[in-house]
Amino acid sequence: MSDSLTYDLVVLGGGTGGYAAALRAAELDMKVALIERDKVGGTCLHRGCVPTKALLHAAEVADTAKESSNFGIEVEFKGIDIEKVLDYKNNVISRNYKGLQGLVKARGIDTYFGTGKLVGKDTVEVEGEDGKHTVTGTNVLLSTGSTSKTIGLDITERVITSTEALELDKVPGSAIVLGGGVIGVEFASVWSSFGAQVTIVEGLKHLVANEDETISKNLERAFKKRKIGFKLGTMFKGVEETADGVKVTLEDGSVLEAEYLLVAVGRGPVTDGFGFEEQGIPMDRGFVLANERLHTGVGNIYACGDIVPGLQLAHRAFGQGIFIAEEIAGLNPVPVLESGIPRVTYCEPEIFSVGLSSKQAEEQYGADSVESIEYNLGGNGKSVILNTTGLVKVIREKDGPVVGVHGIGARLSEQAGEAQLIVNWEAFPEEVAQLIHAHPTQNEALGEAHLALAGKPLHFHS
Amino acid sequence: MSDSLTYDLVVLGGGTGGYAAALRAAELDMKVALIERDKVGGTCLHRGCVPTKALLHAAEVADTAKESSNFGIEVEFKGIDIEKVLDYKNNVISRNYKGLQGLVKARGIDTYFGTGKLVGKDTVEVEGEDGKHTVTGTNVLLSTGSTSKTIGLDITERVITSTEALELDKVPGSAIVLGGGVIGVEFASVWSSFGAQVTIVEGLKHLVANEDETISKNLERAFKKRKIGFKLGTMFKGVEETADGVKVTLEDGSVLEAEYLLVAVGRGPVTDGFGFEEQGIPMDRGFVLANERLHTGVGNIYACGDIVPGLQLAHRAFGQGIFIAEEIAGLNPVPVLESGIPRVTYCEPEIFSVGLSSKQAEEQYGADSVESIEYNLGGNGKSVILNTTGLVKVIREKDGPVVGVHGIGARLSEQAGEAQLIVNWEAFPEEVAQLIHAHPTQNEALGEAHLALAGKPLHFHS
Repeated sequence: MSDSLTYDLVVLGGGTGGYAAALRAAELDMKVALIERDKVGGTCLHRGCVPTKALLHAAEVADTAKESSNFGIEVEFKGIDIEKVLDYKNNVISRNYKGLQGLVKARGIDTYFGTGKLVGKDTVEVEGEDGKHTVTGTNVLLSTGSTSKTIGLDITERVITSTEALELDKVPGSAIVLGGGVIGVEFASVWSSFGAQVTIVEGLKHLVANEDETISKNLERAFKKRKIGFKLGTMFKGVEETADGVKVTLEDGSVLEAEYLLVAVGRGPVTDGFGFEEQGIPMDRGFVLANERLHTGVGNIYACGDIVPGLQLAHRAFGQGIFIAEEIAGLNPVPVLESGIPRVTYCEPEIFSVGLSSKQAEEQYGADSVESIEYNLGGNGKSVILNTTGLVKVIREKDGPVVGVHGIGARLSEQAGEAQLIVNWEAFPEEVAQLIHAHPTQNEALGEAHLALAGKPLHFHS
Repeated sequence: MSDSLTYDLVVLGGGTGGYAAALRAAELDMKVALIERDKVGGTCLHRGCVPTKALLHAAEVADTAKESSNFGIEVEFKGIDIEKVLDYKNNVISRNYKGLQGLVKARGIDTYFGTGKLVGKDTVEVEGEDGKHTVTGTNVLLSTGSTSKTIGLDITERVITSTEALELDKVPGSAIVLGGGVIGVEFASVWSSFGAQVTIVEGLKHLVANEDETISKNLERAFKKRKIGFKLGTMFKGVEETADGVKVTLEDGSVLEAEYLLVAVGRGPVTDGFGFEEQGIPMDRGFVLANERLHTGVGNIYACGDIVPGLQLAHRAFGQGIFIAEEIAGLNPVPVLESGIPRVTYCEPEIFSVGLSSKQAEEQYGADSVESIEYNLGGNGKSVILNTTGLVKVIREKDGPVVGVHGIGARLSEQAGEAQLIVNWEAFPEEVAQLIHAHPTQNEALGEAHLALAGKPLHFHS
């Protein structure tokens, strides 16, 4: 730890946004303090994206084993060894964590472990195990992250959030998942692959209701085929614990019973008790408000990540963190546009999207000024090889650029990369159609969709 | 079959290039004849890309089963049921074939089954089962495809090419693969996953010698770990058949024995006996020569696909076929640039590349004017989850655009899409770095490599 306690940048919260800003600032020769009360890496690495995706991969391995005879591979599926699944998951975390710790150290960032409190416009007081530190910075970044919402429910052995679900040392025989958003469908997918009876309860009328409706409907079909139950447009009323599980009552009067209730109703900002309000930071329902350049309007205080209203995604926080470091360094970076950030849901089948849904595009441009195409993966050789179904949907402004790209199907998350270049660079379908996609890849489905939208369908059945 | 035998376009050869041209031409309201002596879809669908990728996926399933306990999934691997593997592969082919036949029919293309011969600058004579047809076209496309080279060896039960290997109704206990190019390493990969002892013999000093040397070396390390043997820089001398296999002699005096010899020394054009030379088509060592706009310089005769010197890839043929149809229709399309076509090798680990290797870039721009970065997949969360290793390499002209993107690692084929947009659109690393890649995907590795090359590495260990 440096003797000097004055920094160019003090980062309050070492999650993805915070550490990305710290790393980039250090690279730009700033002296940086990073304050974290738990572990650097935050929710994403320790309790979020990374461990869930590890479980989802274990689930994929289980599915592959169970379906391997379709491909001529003779296998006897013997079951899930949940201890070993957790070991694998923890090993993935620790490998990434070690790498991250190495980076933070190598770039000479001072890390303070303890709970920080903003006590002035440039000062954070840290209450750590090794006593109290007063850390002052020319610039301050608030990046205290988010936590699972519990809508007033007590979290118990049977009523859990994703945090507990990730540590669960057994495969539930049955589970109710409250919430059909990203987190809900991901856990439903994992548990179903592991052999559980799962029922999702969602108040809105679709699963992954933020996605284009075509994608939601396709996911619902796929989940039905996987025998994952769901009740849509149904409000939760209450839960009571029974001898060996939970009894969930819904507003429609029905009662569901299962071993566990997973509360997956979204994540809320963690901003209580950090002194933000006292320092005049503008806030709304727990969120920190910041302008387009992520400045709070107070002193030199910035904010990023899940505490700033918008998409709660680790890679958004990365982008924002890098932006803030460059902004402070005077590099005049281009703001991170919310509309161009790719979104992925890693359930089976996987979902990705960038840009607008059909509905959003029609609202923005008028229904007559929007064209779209759906390319069925049945026409995509690699998807047939993988034995997956689904589609890619591309939406354009009529005679204009692509404004939305969406997809559902096994492994399709990786298509978000090309899709986000297309949307962010405002490419015309004709420009994409001119280029050649490798055969046989799933990536070809993007190429075929653009060919079709450019009026020259190749392997396209209408 | 139409009564009229005069067409706007007569396509000689219904492989990928030929049928793509036919489909696009029909879409552009041309009257099209498609002449094919075997099956529409050609090598790619029936004896090439598609069936090999099906076998490679079966191999992946076998690997997954064998390694599943690393992920906590308990499985007993019982073996390969090669009959069922072949059924699966044939089913993939027939699904795609059915789709393709439907497209050809729906677009009103007249298909002639039989061997065609160019007997005039606008006339093809077809010798079919139903007799002789004389088919005349305002335009003619030569797309007769390629076949495995055999360097004078007799193809027998034991000395085989990829065509026979795809039908082999047993898993070889051992095999020698002559040629470490794309086809050779793909079959070596499949057979090794199925349990065979494989040794590759390659005359050049690297496997996949057309790739960037970093990629070749990485593949060699990966194959060593998989216990796939290879002898590099070693010339083949001869083969003799033994009671239960083959004895292969090499120029260095060594002798290898195995059950099979797979001859995978590349593919040569199929142009003999079609009357090309008689009509004055310019040719070189069996290839048809065409200009940048794929015109042969004779009449209105075009050529595309594997008979035209260049990359022998199905998606190049697709692009060329579409180009020719649009060229004939007077749409003045942009020529397919060889340098921007993505290349994929689907062995385990997978390889993709677009644009120049380091060596090619240095030759083109001078060693001092080229910069590159290698991003190790050890820093990529999703790759850690998949338990794969490898790297992504991005090459730029100093202060200029990206000129090459390369990668090796499980499932990396799908990254070819974003990579080819970057290379073809001559993007600067700084422009890519500004955009956000979804976390946690393998696609992030592309983002991280561009961040690093733009001078702002994030999760990058140097």
